[in-house]
Amino acid sequence: MTLTLAQARTIIDAALAKGREEGAQPLAVVVLDAGGHPVAFAREDGASLFRFDIARAKATGALGMGADTCVIAQRAANNPAFFQSVVAVTGGQLALSPGGVLIRISGGTVIGAVGISGDTGEMDEACACAGIAAAGLSHGVQS
Amino acid sequence: MTLTLAQARTIIDAALAKGREEGAQPLAVVVLDAGGHPVAFAREDGASLFRFDIARAKATGALGMGADTCVIAQRAANNPAFFQSVVAVTGGQLALSPGGVLIRISGGTVIGAVGISGDTGEMDEACACAGIAAAGLSHGVQS
Amino acid sequence: MTLTLAQARTIIDAALAKGREEGAQPLAVVVLDAGGHPVAFAREDGASLFRFDIARAKATGALGMGADTCVIAQRAANNPAFFQSVVAVTGGQLALSPGGVLIRISGGTVIGAVGISGDTGEMDEACACAGIAAAGLSHGVQS
Amino acid sequence: MTLTLAQARTIIDAALAKGREEGAQPLAVVVLDAGGHPVAFAREDGASLFRFDIARAKATGALGMGADTCVIAQRAANNPAFFQSVVAVTGGQLALSPGGVLIRISGGTVIGAVGISGDTGEMDEACACAGIAAAGLSHGVQS
Repeated sequence: MTLTLAQARTIIDAALAKGREEGAQPLAVVVLDAGGHPVAFAREDGASLFRFDIARAKATGALGMGADTCVIAQRAANNPAFFQSVVAVTGGQLALSPGGVLIRISGGTVIGAVGISGDTGEMDEACACAGIAAAGLSHGVQS
Repeated sequence: MTLTLAQARTIIDAALAKGREEGAQPLAVVVLDAGGHPVAFAREDGASLFRFDIARAKATGALGMGADTCVIAQRAANNPAFFQSVVAVTGGQLALSPGGVLIRISGGTVIGAVGISGDTGEMDEACACAGIAAAGLSHGVQS
Repeated sequence: MTLTLAQARTIIDAALAKGREEGAQPLAVVVLDAGGHPVAFAREDGASLFRFDIARAKATGALGMGADTCVIAQRAANNPAFFQSVVAVTGGQLALSPGGVLIRISGGTVIGAVGISGDTGEMDEACACAGIAAAGLSHGVQS
Repeated sequence: MTLTLAQARTIIDAALAKGREEGAQPLAVVVLDAGGHPVAFAREDGASLFRFDIARAKATGALGMGADTCVIAQRAANNPAFFQSVVAVTGGQLALSPGGVLIRISGGTVIGAVGISGDTGEMDEACACAGIAAAGLSHGVQS
């Protein structure tokens, strides 16, 4: 199954709605397909300039390592040298902060990832999970 | 005046609607702000992998040179060495094909650019102009 | 459907067998999945150093543009400035020579690409098509 | 003596067999020649997207520093600033984790390197050593 543009937009709309509801800082949200290529993106008014790049590096990093960035960030705290070398080898495509979340269908197959940047990593991640759930898809974070 | 996310999404929706109406190949559409940073993006199902990168390089190139890429592509045909050097110096942020169109407010001030890739350069450009017009903004192509 | 390692290895083995049968120069053969990521690769003894990079850029370019590189190379002959700018924007991931061939399942869905470098573009392409056919998959070149 | 494609494939097959025997996560295995150029590669179904890049950076790093990455990773723990500067100066071609193992002939001459990514560094390394041994070649790790 391939992630569709319609699904990606549902994820973004719901993630942004969650952010507004929670009073989050302005967010950037990107949705990537299983190969790490952008399907849809939105940056809220007032979000600063790096937000797209950071959001994308969260989502790409989750796909690249096969885990949500909240998990990767914890591993990196215990093994910083290795993870900094992964950041380098991938041209920076791994942002070591929560907010990059794998998108799964039932059964667990990964069909893409969401990356959000703008508020704390925890808030970014909560908005990503809300977006995925709104599209009827699964994330591993709260399971 | 700063281009808003709401305007960017209106541009994308109208550009994609124009593409469907014209029977275009699957399109990727990106909207950048005046600083060349992505505000919103969508890639239609079935569009090939480079479409985001090419669309972005059309929009960035238009902002970078201060002209729509239909004009730049013509200049490049007459002066290929210079324009290839611009492509090189900018790390590839100039795609030499129509479909990168400046977004202006009345009076002519540039507030961003649209880049589209997926069909012929002419079709890509027509969809970009339709998107800008639908948002009540101006493009220079048909004026 | 996802391209498997077993399929990728069948493609490589059959492509190399075709090359030996035809008396081709030493070849490098790469198989990418639909997202452009390497699944398997082999470089024959005696193949020169750039062969991996060129083979990969043929396969990535085919996926990126949604067409075999024999078709892209012809388009590029008519519009060199645009295609050189695509080469630049993608960091060189488009080799403008035959030998990059999309892998399709019945119905036409693209599940990956083969890239071969080592002999003439025509020979490279013939070996790629032989490999894809041996795996029971489809290529568009001879249809 | 030059590492042959036949040897590289024996190494990969035996490394993957070891991984299956040990119940490892899906692995990516790359074999480089003495010049650091890829000879053969395989990525098991389900391995995440960065595995090729990380495996390659382990193998390239081993060749680049003249030591297995298990040794380099320990040195880096004691001297992180220097090794991060090596990562930077080589464009990321050094992954600071076990799993990059030099391939030697009797007498000790290095003819290439194996890099594996997918499971823990220790498991990756054990599979690399099993592969090298199966090809009748030597690795320094257990000697």
